[in-house]
Parts: sequence; structure tokens; C-alpha cells
Amino acid sequence: MDERPNDFSLFLAKNDSTYKSQNIMPNKAIIITIGDELLIGQTVDTNSTHIALVLGEHNIEVIRKIAISDNKDDITETLDEALKKADVVIFTGGLGPTADDITKPVLCAYFGGTLVRNAEVLEHIEGIFSKRNLPMLQRNAMQADVPDNCRILFNKMGTAPGMLFEKEGKYIASLPGVPFEMKYILEQELMPILKDKVHSERVVLHKHIVTSGIPESLLADRIQDIETAFPAHMHLAYLPSLRMVKLRITSEGLDAHVLETEAQQVVQAITERVEKYIIGYEDVGLDVYATRLLADRKLKFGTAESCTGGYFGHLITNIPGSSRYYKGGIISYANEVKEHILQVPFETLAAHGAVSEETVIAMAKGALTQLEVDLAISFSGILGPDGGTETKPVGLVWMAIANKEGRVETKQLHLRYTRLTNKEAVINEGWAFLRTFILEHY
Amino acid sequence: MDERPNDFSLFLAKNDSTYKSQNIMPNKAIIITIGDELLIGQTVDTNSTHIALVLGEHNIEVIRKIAISDNKDDITETLDEALKKADVVIFTGGLGPTADDITKPVLCAYFGGTLVRNAEVLEHIEGIFSKRNLPMLQRNAMQADVPDNCRILFNKMGTAPGMLFEKEGKYIASLPGVPFEMKYILEQELMPILKDKVHSERVVLHKHIVTSGIPESLLADRIQDIETAFPAHMHLAYLPSLRMVKLRITSEGLDAHVLETEAQQVVQAITERVEKYIIGYEDVGLDVYATRLLADRKLKFGTAESCTGGYFGHLITNIPGSSRYYKGGIISYANEVKEHILQVPFETLAAHGAVSEETVIAMAKGALTQLEVDLAISFSGILGPDGGTETKPVGLVWMAIANKEGRVETKQLHLRYTRLTNKEAVINEGWAFLRTFILEHY
Repeated sequence: MDERPNDFSLFLAKNDSTYKSQNIMPNKAIIITIGDELLIGQTVDTNSTHIALVLGEHNIEVIRKIAISDNKDDITETLDEALKKADVVIFTGGLGPTADDITKPVLCAYFGGTLVRNAEVLEHIEGIFSKRNLPMLQRNAMQADVPDNCRILFNKMGTAPGMLFEKEGKYIASLPGVPFEMKYILEQELMPILKDKVHSERVVLHKHIVTSGIPESLLADRIQDIETAFPAHMHLAYLPSLRMVKLRITSEGLDAHVLETEAQQVVQAITERVEKYIIGYEDVGLDVYATRLLADRKLKFGTAESCTGGYFGHLITNIPGSSRYYKGGIISYANEVKEHILQVPFETLAAHGAVSEETVIAMAKGALTQLEVDLAISFSGILGPDGGTETKPVGLVWMAIANKEGRVETKQLHLRYTRLTNKEAVINEGWAFLRTFILEHY
Repeated sequence: MDERPNDFSLFLAKNDSTYKSQNIMPNKAIIITIGDELLIGQTVDTNSTHIALVLGEHNIEVIRKIAISDNKDDITETLDEALKKADVVIFTGGLGPTADDITKPVLCAYFGGTLVRNAEVLEHIEGIFSKRNLPMLQRNAMQADVPDNCRILFNKMGTAPGMLFEKEGKYIASLPGVPFEMKYILEQELMPILKDKVHSERVVLHKHIVTSGIPESLLADRIQDIETAFPAHMHLAYLPSLRMVKLRITSEGLDAHVLETEAQQVVQAITERVEKYIIGYEDVGLDVYATRLLADRKLKFGTAESCTGGYFGHLITNIPGSSRYYKGGIISYANEVKEHILQVPFETLAAHGAVSEETVIAMAKGALTQLEVDLAISFSGILGPDGGTETKPVGLVWMAIANKEGRVETKQLHLRYTRLTNKEAVINEGWAFLRTFILEHY
């Protein structure tokens, strides 16, 4: 461990009093998601995550997220509580055309309004049904009934309009629960209005440092003195996941320029301390860091996936523009596919089995030739719950990278999670493996 | 629409008074997730979904889920509120070895305890570090410090022990935020204790009906009289997603047998009304329904994916035992891979382009031959954000299924979402397409 004199605390300590003495009033928000499916564990809530992200970009601080039932008392009680703590309350869910969707009448009544049919919304809904060649029902027309005490957030993507209420200088919005409708209304309709109404002098700044290859606790020890010297308005969070630890430095204050300078000094200090573990400074996954190298080096890449079943290819092709470097892959789940398409010799499979160093090497080489690429990665393993043997237990995974220059590297893993977490772990090891391979050989 | 006499309301109405007159006291739970990453939109919370599911299986009703910051005041204030409403409170997050992890000391102090080093936990942590060949630090040893006023929930999967506190007949548990550690402690340590302590006479029953091919509002109209006749202790929820609408009937009472009989009659009545749209009665996705047919019919299946990039294969191989019917796939992202591995004629690509009916037919046929399967599906499309043209706009997708008997069917989609939602929509259409193809031809 390299120990260096810590002159770092000095510069930050003197800045802190500036902030402590100021009474910074941030805009606070609470997100309320409505739906029994959230409370019985049927649905994972991705809506509130997206809303929190967008609010954060507008310097509105989410102080709480609450999931409740489709129930009038729960909605009104939670809203009462939220209005005591927050300046902005955003609801999602419960705006559909069926009897369990009660958000609209409940909010309308809460703010003392009446539902009135809106001609523009009605015309839009009629348009959707006629375009889809579906009969329009009374319950669909009723989606055009909107409270007369709210501003309508027009839903170009669907039939349920969003609503924006105002009460005593506070803003309460209601958005549909269908994710792409919610996103559209949030970004195109709500935020343009809200950003003018809810204005704060306070600035929140996040900086990220993405590391790989160092455990969370060791990392924390190495930079402990830097963290201890943080002023009160600065905060360090550790976000560990499979194969990487992300550091998030959050800082708040009134002067964006001062915050930026200060945060950059912290990033610089941490970088000097643990430089060799740092992958980058953007809050993106190892997939983005690895594939970016493929693009930079103008390399053509291919995959040969057995146990991961196409997951690696799926994640690559989630990235817009990946066709520049990704040509494709073979999902060789069955041994015949390994043999007939990837040209893994029958003898290799017979002598060493599908999950072996010899087989993943042959798979990677086969992918290299068949897909006509510069480098290829291969995976084969036993992810469970069944399929393990005495010598090859569940959790054993082999991977290989081969390139046109004839270089081949392999890696073995012993995983101990469930099937899906094992798959996730293999993929993450794969990104780290690919990234290192490119950095070392290109 | 088939109209039939509604004799259905009669039987339910007479049962209802039995329930209304009884004072059913359910066990109520609140889940509190801790972490700034949840509030700034950096992390999607899957932990609370899983906890809710497991609690539900033990007849403990989750009445609220709350996400808060890593902050002492937020933790204690939320816990105060939760204890007023719930019998069980479950925390996750904030138990790691770094300075931002404060859940343990805060809860310890809240319940008036002191942290004491636990020899068994310490030995376990030392074992993990020696096995991984990593230096054990003071901050890791401190993870073995546990409150002297709680029951330790041993964490076989990691270094942070869980905790179970009791106060005035209420139970408060704290679990780590790392998902597989949380799941292990929840299921192996916490629930075995909790299920004996928290016992309720109340039974909650969920039944599901999965439909496809009928819009939510039309479905609601068709079964409106059945829903209207529901007794007060029974509730119907509509869960629409891409290509399907799930119905959830939730019923609660004291007599599991009566609830079951009653719910079955409702399911029967709905089935008679909309039978042709019903896919099944299990709360699983179209992927499970479609692949189950492959297994039942003993069909060997393969994939040829361009725009979906391996996602279809990934989802199939997420299902344990999928090697019985899935042989593998070709991810033909580049045209050369379509041509050289899938044997799509150069002339087809040149004349019609990669996104065309002709190309997906050739891809499916190529997959059939190359992968040596009974039937194969293919996808090619423009998912965006770029790559669209005047005649082939973003959102245009073609898919085909070909089988050994020479049958070929195709489908065209026009999608209007973002890249990832478009991918999701294609996949869901693919499952529905595959399911229908098998039902019609095997």
C-alpha cells in the first residue's frame, strides 16, 4: 500500500464554513407509486427509479419513495403526509380504464374538483381506437374525464392523461403506470412546466469513480483519510456490485463552480491513490467501458455463448451503434451446435466435456473464423440448479478470448449463487476479461 | 359478445355477510429500503419485491414500501411511523463495511443496545477472507460487532449479519442490501423464526388468469357483471403489459377452503366468458407458456436473431431445463453472418434489405437447417434511435417461424417506443407468435 502525506484535508476544511452557515432550501420531492402488484411482489418498480433520475437532473431532491395499495384511504393519507414534507409529489399508477384504477377520482376529490369530459383528450382517445381498429367503449371515453381543478398533461403515447394539481405553492402530479407513457409525460409535459415553477438556488453535484479489481473494504481503507477530510456538504457512497465498486461523491451547495472545483480535487486525490483500479468516471456499467474500447480500437467482435445463452450479445446490442463493432454470435447451447457451427472437434467434447478449458478455447477460435471477426469471447458453464457432477459442480464456468493474431486467454470461475445471479456474474466477469484483454493487447 | 344470464351474483352475495361480520386481524408489514442510490435513481429496487413475495406466501400483508436515504433521522423517523401501522418491519441496506453504512448502529441505538463483537460471526468473516486470499481489515472485523439486544440472522453468503429485534410484540428485521445475501437470510434465517411468532388466522388467496389478444378495456367490459357481483372481501386487478393482460383475483378471509371454492367459481365464470383469450392460470410470462409447449410437444427449437441480439435465447436459457428443447441460435447482427452462417442468399439481402419479409424467412429457414431443429424463429428490425429510412422507419420489425414440414409464417410490427422497449415488445410478440404457431400446427 502506498502511503503518502495527507495534505488533502487542509483545502477542504477551509471551504466548509461557507456552506454550513448558509441556509440552503432545496426543493424536496416524494414519489408515490400506486398498485397492489407492487406490494405483493408481483411487479418490480422501475418507474420511481426513472422519475428520481429526472427530478435529480432538475435539482429536485427525492427524499422518499413510497409504494401503496390501490386504496382511497392509503392514497389520501400518504398524500397528507407527503405534503407536510415535500414541495413536489409525483404519483404513478392507477389511471387505467378498469374498476381498480381509482387515482383520478380520488385526487380530484382530494383537491375539491369535479370530473369534466375534455374534448381534446376524447378526440385523441378516439383516434387511437380507430387507428387500432378496436371498438371504443364507454370506459375508454371516460378516460377523457379530467378534474376541472388540474392542468392536463397530455398523453400522446396512450389513453390515460396525466394531471398536475397545485396547492399552497406545492405541486402534485399524477402519471400513468405504463412505463413508456409515464416517461413521455414526465419528460415532455411535466418537467417543462415544473422546472419553471419549482426553482431552487441549491445545486446538487454527483461525481462517480468506477473501480474494478479491489474489494470495497480495501478501497475504503486506502482512501479513508480523504473521506474523513470531506466537508459536511460532501458525502461518499460505495456501490459494490459483481466485479466492480462504484464510488459516488455527492456534494451540495449554492455555487456550482465551487462545488465542481472541489469535487474535481477529491476525484483527483482518489485517483492518485488507487489509479490502477480505476476504469472510468462515468456512471455506466462494465459493458459500456468494454465495448467502447472495441469501438475505439476499430475491432470487430463476436461471441460464442453456451451457458449465457445470448445474454452477452443481448447486452451489447442494447447499446445504440453496436453494429460498428459487433458482428454477431453463436448460441451453442447444444453440443451439436458447438460441433457443427463452431467447429469444436468431437474429440475435444468427448475427452474434456462441454464445460472445459479445451472446449471454450475451441469455441472462441470457432467463433473467430465463422463470424470473421478480430476477436471473440466464449462461455461454457453449469449455472444450476441442476447439472453438476462430482468433478464439475454447479457454478463451474470457463471462458476464453481468442484473437486473429493467435492469442488465446482463458479464465475459470467457481460461482455459488442461484442460476440467474450466476449468469449475471459470468457476464460481468466477461466484460472485465474483455476490457483487460483489449487494454493489454491492442 | 356473448350475453348470458348472470346467475353468478347470487352465490357470492350470500357468502359475504360471513366475512363482513368478522373482525379479521391480518399481520401487516412495512418494508423499508435504505440507500441514496434508490432516491437518486441510480439503482432499481428488486429487494423489496422479493421480500413482499415471500411475506405474502406467509400471509403477512405488505401495506407499504418506503425507500429512504442513508440518514439517521430518516431511519428512526420512518421506523417510528412504521411501528404505528405494522406488526413487522423489514429493512434492507446499509450494513456494509464502509462509512456510509449506518443501519446497524442506528437500529442498535434505537432499541437501546450496545454493539458487541460476536465470535461466531468473526470466525465466519475471517474464513471468507482467508478463502479469497484477501487481507482482513479492521472494518471487516467490525462487521462482527452486533447489537446485544437482537437475534443474529447468520449470513452464510457474506460478511454482514442480519438482525432481528423485538419490541412490544412487533418484529423488526434488518437485512443486507446485496440481493443474494438478503434472499438467503430472509428465506433461511428470518422466515423460519417469523412464521412461528407472527401468526394470523387470516388467509389471503390470489388467483391469476393470463389473457392475450384482448385489450384491457374490452376484457373489463366482457366480465363487468362478474366483477360487480364480487363480495367485499374479493378484489379484481388488471395487469396489462405488452401483448397480455393478467387478471388477479385477491380474496381474504378466515376459511381457506371457502375462499378457494369461491375463487374457483369466479375463475370458472370468467373462463366461460372469455375462454378463447385465456393462455393459462399461472402467474408466469408468455415465455414460460410458449416454451412449455416446446417441451410438451418434444420439439427442438432454434433462434436467428438480428435486432434482438440474443435476447430471445437469453430468456429461454433463463428457464432451468431449457436444454431439453432449445438447441441454440445465431445472432446475425451483421449481414455477413446472415449470409455466411444462416445462408441467406446475397441476392435476397441486396434486393429486399436486412429488414424484410424475404430476409426473415431465409433466416428462419437457415436456422432450421444449420441448427438442425424442428422449428426456428427469426427477427430483423430497426429498433432505433437511428437507422430508419423513408420506406423503412425506426420501429419496423419482421419476424418469421419456419418448421421442418416446410411451413413458414411471418409477422410485421410497427413499434413506436424507445430502443429497449421496442426490443421488449418484439420479444413478447415473438412468444405470442411462437405459442400460436405451436398450438395451430402440432
